[in-house]
Amino acid sequence: MNKITAVKGTRDFYPQEMAVLNWIMEGWRCCSVRNGFEQYDSPIFEYLQLYTQKSGEEIAGQLFSLTDRGGRQLAIRPETTPSLARMINQRISALPRPIKWFSISRLCRAERPQRGRLREFFQWNIDIIGDDSPVSDAECIYTAVDYLRSVGLTSKDIVVKFSSRSLLAALLKDMGFTENQLDGIYSLLDKRSKLPPETFAALAKDTVPDALLREKLLACLDSFNPQGSQDPLEKLSALAQAKDTKPYVASDSDPVQLEVAKLEQLKQYLQIMGIYEYCQFDINIVRGLAYYTGPVFEIFDRGSQLRALCGGGRYDNLLAGLGGPQVPATGFGMGDVVLEILLEEKKLLRSFNNELHFFVAYAGVEFFDKALQLTCRLRAQGYSAAFDYKRLALGKQLKQAAQQNARFAVIVGQETVEADEITLKDMTKTTQKTVPLPQFLADPLAFLDK
Amino acid sequence: MNKITAVKGTRDFYPQEMAVLNWIMEGWRCCSVRNGFEQYDSPIFEYLQLYTQKSGEEIAGQLFSLTDRGGRQLAIRPETTPSLARMINQRISALPRPIKWFSISRLCRAERPQRGRLREFFQWNIDIIGDDSPVSDAECIYTAVDYLRSVGLTSKDIVVKFSSRSLLAALLKDMGFTENQLDGIYSLLDKRSKLPPETFAALAKDTVPDALLREKLLACLDSFNPQGSQDPLEKLSALAQAKDTKPYVASDSDPVQLEVAKLEQLKQYLQIMGIYEYCQFDINIVRGLAYYTGPVFEIFDRGSQLRALCGGGRYDNLLAGLGGPQVPATGFGMGDVVLEILLEEKKLLRSFNNELHFFVAYAGVEFFDKALQLTCRLRAQGYSAAFDYKRLALGKQLKQAAQQNARFAVIVGQETVEADEITLKDMTKTTQKTVPLPQFLADPLAFLDK
Repeated sequence: MNKITAVKGTRDFYPQEMAVLNWIMEGWRCCSVRNGFEQYDSPIFEYLQLYTQKSGEEIAGQLFSLTDRGGRQLAIRPETTPSLARMINQRISALPRPIKWFSISRLCRAERPQRGRLREFFQWNIDIIGDDSPVSDAECIYTAVDYLRSVGLTSKDIVVKFSSRSLLAALLKDMGFTENQLDGIYSLLDKRSKLPPETFAALAKDTVPDALLREKLLACLDSFNPQGSQDPLEKLSALAQAKDTKPYVASDSDPVQLEVAKLEQLKQYLQIMGIYEYCQFDINIVRGLAYYTGPVFEIFDRGSQLRALCGGGRYDNLLAGLGGPQVPATGFGMGDVVLEILLEEKKLLRSFNNELHFFVAYAGVEFFDKALQLTCRLRAQGYSAAFDYKRLALGKQLKQAAQQNARFAVIVGQETVEADEITLKDMTKTTQKTVPLPQFLADPLAFLDK
Repeated sequence: MNKITAVKGTRDFYPQEMAVLNWIMEGWRCCSVRNGFEQYDSPIFEYLQLYTQKSGEEIAGQLFSLTDRGGRQLAIRPETTPSLARMINQRISALPRPIKWFSISRLCRAERPQRGRLREFFQWNIDIIGDDSPVSDAECIYTAVDYLRSVGLTSKDIVVKFSSRSLLAALLKDMGFTENQLDGIYSLLDKRSKLPPETFAALAKDTVPDALLREKLLACLDSFNPQGSQDPLEKLSALAQAKDTKPYVASDSDPVQLEVAKLEQLKQYLQIMGIYEYCQFDINIVRGLAYYTGPVFEIFDRGSQLRALCGGGRYDNLLAGLGGPQVPATGFGMGDVVLEILLEEKKLLRSFNNELHFFVAYAGVEFFDKALQLTCRLRAQGYSAAFDYKRLALGKQLKQAAQQNARFAVIVGQETVEADEITLKDMTKTTQKTVPLPQFLADPLAFLDK
């Protein structure tokens, strides 16, 4: 029979890769907890409808869908936010707000596997529900940066590019676009950085057939290009202020001014939180998912051509769109795949290793049963302990102990039978000593520094 | 729009349920590590063929299968062992043996949801590959008991029922059954305890039409009933020894004698390991999966009618059956669903809670920014810290701090601006004190016992 392989785009986590994944996930967990988030999880599959309704075309086209025996149309989760919205909606009146939750989820998307993009991956999600102020947007960005900083990435390595969909909407309407053209333009702009200029130009022509409007759009984007000499957010503020001089605009309700003010507030919080050096306003950031409504951000490696490490934003209408009340919400997702590539490149990748306290060896097969017994006594006390099944010679057992990074080797032999003593070998040194077994068992790690 | 619900048989893990699941999974992880196992993981979906080939009818009938855009037939994993066998086969020559691995996996089975059985659940898997002695079977049983004991279950609460498929095969062949009848009989016996007597009798008639053979089979099972006065394993040993008196049986190669000797060896190891009080030989244990070849076991709650907490056994032919070499293997799986019901019944269920070190409150909205800044400085030092978004009055903020089980409340106010001091309130006491901010930040938890 032929060997069956793993499905393309999925990964097998052998212990070495698992230790890396565990290190990443433990970092996510600790960072979530220190930022005041509580963990939740949702099922691996949901009704298909949960995704086709609100996530937008890109996600809907990447679903692993299935029909169960009862004829229900299901899909493996491609993202966590719709499940979160569903869960929140179910208990909205019982949950004290703001709700600050995190999840570390396995997700699947039927994409063509490529560098930084697999068909199965893990994603860290952070969400704050029930707060509409920029402080919760800032808190999300802070939490993402807090994690990335904790693994050694500096503001020289990564950049948080942020913008706002509601600001873009206000600008677009000022240009003359109508409400129902906006989604098409978001989708167009989200693809810009991923497409060759000619392909983008053709797509822009399809999306905005009116040449004048299209030129206005592209000129606006170019004028806030972060590569320019002036901070584009300052430029934008100047533009918003300038509107006051035009008497036909009611300054206190001008949408562009309002949105610029909100973005400036966000910037101020990011400064107070001490992470603004990581951040850069970039009007080109719109995000691919359909449900975003306010500030949006993506985090990139400054040096390379990797995909975004992390992306998120405000989605104030999603809960209502899924049958719940109107509740503001903001959050982000960070996948393991691009992150791992970047950390590997920067030589910052670590792994989570469990210590083996004791390797219990026997100086002859006649002591095997005694070694087995001692191993189990140590385990029952909560210590990690291993032994050799193969009844190898003592020297080979000690080699195994070294291979397994045991802290101590405990040798059971004639002296154990005759005098109730064991030999304790410190694997980090060349020393060993004979210890009465009851004394050893009373406090097995007490011999650590002696 | 109607609310979309979770799919029946799946669970939403709100923070409270998640803390319970995390406690269970952390217990599994620690127990695996102290018993010398390394963690691995496999993809959530595999080629359908991986399960239809070797797992047997029961599993094949419970698959969530799907066809991807490339026309590949896939299935969500219903168990971990086939993926493990596939992974081991891929690297068999590079992996030092015995391979001792564990996984904590999300699995799905398209079953009718009922008490103790859901369509999505978590399972702890322990496997030892590359050792054919009963010591590895004993090590698996020990590890399962080690975990259950660590959460407070005693030998009065649970029982490990063990038997051996190869012993049963030897007994069946002695009765006159042929090799190709065995699988049908395993399947029949596995269902026995789950069926009403009449249904079982009818199924037995279908499986073994020959009345004489059928009676022999049922008489044999009854004679080793663990409810009898004599230990059925002793009874079996006596029977095996008695065969020596029959000159037409070559004693040193009699399969029943060999298998009884192996089972006695297993019993001896379980005694040495100090867990035999949890164990009971029970010839009715055969396991539902097709691939078992040797010792098999299931762990039950002694008091109730719950399904098995845990089941496993030796599967020496699975790796070869999936295209690899002939390598012996043994292992078990323990799900979270029945376990949680039992622990709940016994009032042994706990949850894994993360401590909130600091709640940073502000004595007036004018100190909000300073509180936010301090929160982030504490987080950057690795402490968990929360604050209130809502700009509530100080009293309400302190109420929040209590609700979130914060260890300390830190109050930022006029004295912070004027004298660079904060007020530190020990939430477990009624005391509070004023501390210079630099001194506080130098070692924030230093005030714990003062």
